[in-house]
Parts: sequence; structure tokens; C-alpha cells
Amino acid sequence: MTRPTSVQIREVGPRDGFQNEPESIPTDDKVRLINSLGRAGFKRIEVASFVRPDVIPQLADGVEVLNRIDVPADVRLMVLVPNSRGLDNALKQRDKFHEVAIFVSASETHNKKNVNRTVAESMADNDVIARRIVAEGLDCAAVIATSFGCPYEGKVEMTRVLDLAERFAEAGATELGFGDTTGMCNPAYAGDFFRAAIERLPGVEITAHFHNTRGQGLANAYAALEAGCASFESSFGELGGCPVPAGSTGNIATEDLVSMFHEMGVQTGLDLEGVIASAREAQAVLGRKLTSHSIIAGAINWAPSAS
Amino acid sequence: MTRPTSVQIREVGPRDGFQNEPESIPTDDKVRLINSLGRAGFKRIEVASFVRPDVIPQLADGVEVLNRIDVPADVRLMVLVPNSRGLDNALKQRDKFHEVAIFVSASETHNKKNVNRTVAESMADNDVIARRIVAEGLDCAAVIATSFGCPYEGKVEMTRVLDLAERFAEAGATELGFGDTTGMCNPAYAGDFFRAAIERLPGVEITAHFHNTRGQGLANAYAALEAGCASFESSFGELGGCPVPAGSTGNIATEDLVSMFHEMGVQTGLDLEGVIASAREAQAVLGRKLTSHSIIAGAINWAPSAS
Repeated sequence: MTRPTSVQIREVGPRDGFQNEPESIPTDDKVRLINSLGRAGFKRIEVASFVRPDVIPQLADGVEVLNRIDVPADVRLMVLVPNSRGLDNALKQRDKFHEVAIFVSASETHNKKNVNRTVAESMADNDVIARRIVAEGLDCAAVIATSFGCPYEGKVEMTRVLDLAERFAEAGATELGFGDTTGMCNPAYAGDFFRAAIERLPGVEITAHFHNTRGQGLANAYAALEAGCASFESSFGELGGCPVPAGSTGNIATEDLVSMFHEMGVQTGLDLEGVIASAREAQAVLGRKLTSHSIIAGAINWAPSAS
Repeated sequence: MTRPTSVQIREVGPRDGFQNEPESIPTDDKVRLINSLGRAGFKRIEVASFVRPDVIPQLADGVEVLNRIDVPADVRLMVLVPNSRGLDNALKQRDKFHEVAIFVSASETHNKKNVNRTVAESMADNDVIARRIVAEGLDCAAVIATSFGCPYEGKVEMTRVLDLAERFAEAGATELGFGDTTGMCNPAYAGDFFRAAIERLPGVEITAHFHNTRGQGLANAYAALEAGCASFESSFGELGGCPVPAGSTGNIATEDLVSMFHEMGVQTGLDLEGVIASAREAQAVLGRKLTSHSIIAGAINWAPSAS
């Protein structure tokens, strides 16, 4: 496989990142940060989730966010729905977004803890939801959590994950996201996995969603890229911690990922300085030091300096 | 190139890490931490530097450290010397260590700022020092800083770096370390570089020394491994910041590197839990939150848990 020369990066900080913030973020700040991301060149942003507001109060203002943000017309906005009710609610804002994410965990225990259903129950519902999303003319992106390991069950078989992916594709999902929910992937496995996924799921977009739980997030992204993966999800500022293991970092930092890709000559269409500026703005809003590296170091300056 | 099935990791935290700590670390703590690293299974530890104590007061107790530490007999201890005077002083402790590191920067400006000499001046001295080290029956490890980019000059030509490496090897160095001093390497270049270095320097050990300045440190290490590199340097707890760019992290975290290698099935001979314990001990000694990821997340637990 030849290394892709350009990749797509979906910014998931406004949903996956904000969701894990303990302090409520004012809607004004969310809108301002998403607009800033739009200016940085993202063509895909996950902006809201139609979950019950009592379960995730941080995202209760999703409808207001969707209605107030002002990003370029070619930015594809994504919302996440956990079930049919969530989709019902999302569709009341039908013209405000373009992509809908649905999900399941590959491991039974994680799925049970996350949505209190068996994987079979989730998939029966997902089959219906995916078809409704497609019928609405929206893009359906299916996400499989714990694709590379489960904190409760340990190893998750690759075939189990790819079987679920295939079922999603049959139901109409045009994008399959594989989530390393608690950072258990390593680059050797990432390479093997994405080679297999790309081979088994022709015609479907394959997206890598890595966490930086043990510092290996970018190594995994690099290995996935080398295996041919050309779609990634990440979070500006490395926003979004993870409750398992307690206190861990979550998503890989978008600006670190963009820095790596640009340095390798892989195009992202993004303005790295703009992404870093957005991340620094998020840091100011949240009032705590974020764990992204490029937020401190900045982009690499290759121009010789007088000294 | 086939991926190496086992690697050597030199722990450089007690020298390269401590050196960058702003607060003086008591000798008792240094000794205790090095002894802890010895128990974790390291067979190579950089423990002291024979630089002028007024230049780096943090390492002024190097002789005492060398004389007080108690590590297994098969641990090879390294000291760093900046010049002939440094080697004179080091040799007064001749039986206390096994390896001597000497260095130069590949870029003129960095070398000038670091040791106030031209590269030619440094290399003339290094030729003499290397031969003296070898004559003493010690191993000479030569380190080339700014091998992957210079914060002042930008690009550093690969041939320039490998020419310096070859000259070190001719003078008797049996190990060549390539330092990414301010984190400007990317995994594509790391792969190209280490493939070229291994081809050009047969019979010499090639060591990768990456920094995590922009979060790409482990991705670079993975790429170097895939290119055939089997020797790495890292710092427990991700100790050792870097003054350029201001506030940046420095060396990659040993425990994150070990976690990645072990997960890939690459042997290090180290006890990951022991390394993490040492890093947590360092965190307690320093009284500040270190930036290593595994120090928070711990090793991956693949055993299914009752839940």
C-alpha cells in the first residue's frame, strides 16, 4: 500500500471533547470555538449529540449550537445519535447538519456499561436507524468503540469488529469509524487492522479514531496511514479525557496530528496555525492547561533565523 | 527490513532529564531513583555528566552519585563529557562507569550556542577524546544533536549528519546516537534516516534519541524501529524539558515507549510496572505533575475483569 498523499480530518472536539469536560461550557464559547475551527479549514466537524440532556448536560444546548454557528457552506457538520429517539430529535433540525454518527461497542461489557444494551440489541436498532438516516439523504457514519481492546474484556477479535462493520455497511453506513476507546491499540496492530479493514470493506470510507491514553496515539495514526487509511478523527487541544483509566487523556490532539502529517508531506487542507489558535482559545475558555504538545511548541519553523 | 524482535533502551533521565530540572534534586533522591531504575531492569543508564558545575549545578554531585548508587553488576553506566577536561575528570572515576558519551551538534548555530565552538573545532577535539576513551577500554558513544533539524538553521542535510557519524566511527565510537534535540523529526523522515544510517554505518550501533516536542516522539520511534533501529534512549516520567521552544517537553517517556514496544511484541528486557513505579517516584520527588501518559493510565491490562 502506498501512503495516502492527502487525508481527511474530522474535528470531534466540540462533541467528543466537550462532552468530557466537567465544567459547563457556555453556549457562546462553543459557538465561537466552532466558528474558529471553521476558519481553520475543517471540512468535517462533529458539533452536537442528541442524547438525553440529563445524561450529558454538557451537550444539552446542541440545538442552539447548531442554529447559531456560522461556518463556511462546504463544512459538513456531524451529529451523534444514540438511538431512534435521538434520531427523531435530530431530524427536527434536519437542514442543520449533513452526517449522522451511530455507534456500538465491539465488546459486550463496554456496550452494556455505555448504553445498557447487548450488542445484538444495539445492532438491531442501528440497522433501522442507519436506513432511516440514508432515507433522509444524510450520510451515515457508524462508529465501533473498543475496536482495539476493551478495558473490561481485554482482547477484542478483529473478525468480530469487521463483522459489525460489514453489517453497518449493509445497512447503509458509508463511513466506518474504528475507535480505540481506552487507548489499547499499538502501531503494529493498527497497521494489520487497517490493512484488513480496507480490504474487507471496499467502497466504504474507513476512519481511524485513536486515543492517546498511553502516548501511542500518533504512532497508531502513522501506522494506519501507512496501511492506507486516509480518514482520521481528533480533538483540538487534545480535548476530551477518558474516565477509563481514571484521569487519562482521550482523543489525540488535532494540531499534533496535523503537524505530523504536514511534516510528512501529507496534505490535510488545514491551516495548522489556525488549528493551534483554536486550541489555545479552547484552553483560555476552559481555564486549564490542555495536554496538546503543539499548543506549547507551535508549528515547526523551518526558516533559518538570524542568530 | 524486518522489525527487530528486541531492542535496547538506555534510560537517560538521571542525566538528560535531571539536567533540565529547575530545582536542585538532593543526591539521596538521585541515588534512590537510579537504584529503582536498576531494579526495573535497565542494562544501560546515563547517570552523570562531567561538565563544569557552575554551568550545570544540578549535576555537580555526579561523582557522589557514581560512588553511591547500587545497581546490578551487569548494568552499564554512562557518563557524558563535553571536552578533554571533562574526560580528565571522568577518568578519576574510571572504574565506576562503562560508557562515555561525547557529542556535537550537526548544525553550526546550535553547536555554537551549546558549546561555543564551531563544529570543526568540536570534531577536532572529539577525534582525540574518542581515541582516549577507546584506549581506556571504555565504550565510546557519540551523539549528534539536531540530527533532524535545527531550531536556528532549519533543515539539516542527512549527508552532513552521516558524514559526522562516520568520522566519529573512524575515531572509535562504537555507538552513534542521533538526537532530535527540539523535536523536528517526523516518522517518514525517521524511517528514511535510520534506513540510510544503518546502511552507511555497518558494525556500529545506531541509537535513536527522540523528543516529544510536538507529540510525535513515539511515532518517530516506531518508524525508526520499522527501519531496523534496535537501540533507543528515553527518559522515565518524560523527564527533561527543552528550552527551545520555551516550555516544551523533551525526551520521550520511557514507560510510554516500553508500553508501545511490549504491546507490539518487541522485547525490551524491562519490567514495565517497575519503570512506571520509578517514574511515579520521580514525580513524588520533583513535586510536580510529569507529562508521561503511562504514569497516569498504567500498563494495559489484557485480563478480562469481572464486572
